[in-house]
Amino acid sequence: MTTVEKPRKLGIAAGAGPLPVALAEAAQAAGREVFIVGIEGAANEDIARFPHAWVKLGAMGEFLRLLKSAGCQDIVLIGGLRRPDISKLGLDVTGMKLLPRVARWMKEGDDGLLRGLAEYFEKDHGFHVVGAHEIAASLLMPEALLTKAAPSDQQERDIDTAIRAALAIGALDIGQGAVACRGIVLALEAAEGTDEMLHRVARLPAELTGSPEVPDGVLVKLSKPGQERRVDMPTIGIQTVENAAAAGLAGIAVEAGGTLVVDGEAVARAANAKGLFVLGLSRARIEMQVP
Amino acid sequence: MTTVEKPRKLGIAAGAGPLPVALAEAAQAAGREVFIVGIEGAANEDIARFPHAWVKLGAMGEFLRLLKSAGCQDIVLIGGLRRPDISKLGLDVTGMKLLPRVARWMKEGDDGLLRGLAEYFEKDHGFHVVGAHEIAASLLMPEALLTKAAPSDQQERDIDTAIRAALAIGALDIGQGAVACRGIVLALEAAEGTDEMLHRVARLPAELTGSPEVPDGVLVKLSKPGQERRVDMPTIGIQTVENAAAAGLAGIAVEAGGTLVVDGEAVARAANAKGLFVLGLSRARIEMQVP
Repeated sequence: MTTVEKPRKLGIAAGAGPLPVALAEAAQAAGREVFIVGIEGAANEDIARFPHAWVKLGAMGEFLRLLKSAGCQDIVLIGGLRRPDISKLGLDVTGMKLLPRVARWMKEGDDGLLRGLAEYFEKDHGFHVVGAHEIAASLLMPEALLTKAAPSDQQERDIDTAIRAALAIGALDIGQGAVACRGIVLALEAAEGTDEMLHRVARLPAELTGSPEVPDGVLVKLSKPGQERRVDMPTIGIQTVENAAAAGLAGIAVEAGGTLVVDGEAVARAANAKGLFVLGLSRARIEMQVP
Repeated sequence: MTTVEKPRKLGIAAGAGPLPVALAEAAQAAGREVFIVGIEGAANEDIARFPHAWVKLGAMGEFLRLLKSAGCQDIVLIGGLRRPDISKLGLDVTGMKLLPRVARWMKEGDDGLLRGLAEYFEKDHGFHVVGAHEIAASLLMPEALLTKAAPSDQQERDIDTAIRAALAIGALDIGQGAVACRGIVLALEAAEGTDEMLHRVARLPAELTGSPEVPDGVLVKLSKPGQERRVDMPTIGIQTVENAAAAGLAGIAVEAGGTLVVDGEAVARAANAKGLFVLGLSRARIEMQVP
């Protein structure tokens, strides 16, 4: 007689946005128990549908105790964090002791903070930090066209142009997104994030861009070569589709297997409603653009 | 007995901003007659201090006639152009005939339009298009520190970081500007322009940037390798200094001999008032960062 081992309970440290709940659903569907620790002021109230607790961002001691007493060894860090002012951090003793290291990690930006935290949970507390994509392959972009619309020949060339731009800035560890339209790179993402980049494309002179009536141009997002995929994978969702549509773009192309998609069906539905394409790029296609 | 030949009269096609007048002054100071053709709705009214005429942007026939009857063989295209709606272009027959080519040039962005126009004036009409820097070396950034403030060691490293970023995007013909602060590239310029890039740095999380109280980080602008220097050289002015200060930057570094400075004394004064440095980079220093 063999015993089928039950998968280990998954701890989910939940920041903002719909990804934490999507992950919890996918993990449960795969027969895995979950326990969500929601960051107050960030996590969505929907986490209450699962076994959960709330902590303030600075209550690191309580956060660790909650996960340990829930019996979680594997944890996922997922969802965005807005930086509260320090008076609202709710620092406990453990959080306070960690502050100098947090300050050091933050010098390398959001990536640095997440990398530092992952290392802290593993080395100092024996957790195993896993990536959302290791738990729920359903959250990963497939190598496929998700939409009715498909890129035109010019838009295929714009995808390659934007891939080259994204690779160039990724090689310098700067950012992951680029927008190209009719052969011209219109915008590059550094610290401001994809949504802000798309907002500014919407403000560019009309001759350079598409429009909601005659969409043209593409958004490409690729992970940076040094990116800690467990904690900071490129992500697209309905918001990305809506901002891309408002910027007059014809579509979005991201790395298949290397991008989280919050609710792929909803993304495809939103893109179809706006006439946009959403395409998962093979690694081979991306690597053809490496200089 | 030798005859000293008088320099040829200079035609100045004037767009927006203070550069056309600064150029006219510098040319006159060098003993050269000038004739300014101001683009209506763009050029500054100060051009009235010089022999001048006004034309609408689309009145290409009139523009050519004015320059020819003023006896100008050398022309400089200088100053920004906003794109008016087509009903206000004031198209004449020559302008109308040129429209299909203008549309083609504009597909390559502002650079493409300026390159196309320069070629049109030379090949189709026998003018000699010269760069402002060829007329008035005083408008060029010197290889020097213009200000009381100087970069700290970290800011010197940030200059090199931003140079690498600017070179990478320049090599792909994308843009000319980059902002780096404490080792992180915060923003890259594509089609939106330097001022918009600086505005968004001002909106980034405070941990990543300097502040007007404790300035940190640098703006670097370099010309793109393929850039048509005669008509589209990187430019800085008081506005650049003010936007950099508002973004919390510690200073600005640009290519010496490869950047136009609108009124260097006023730029230095504005930078000193805000505590910023303004530095002219040697070509050798820039080339040390080429990968």
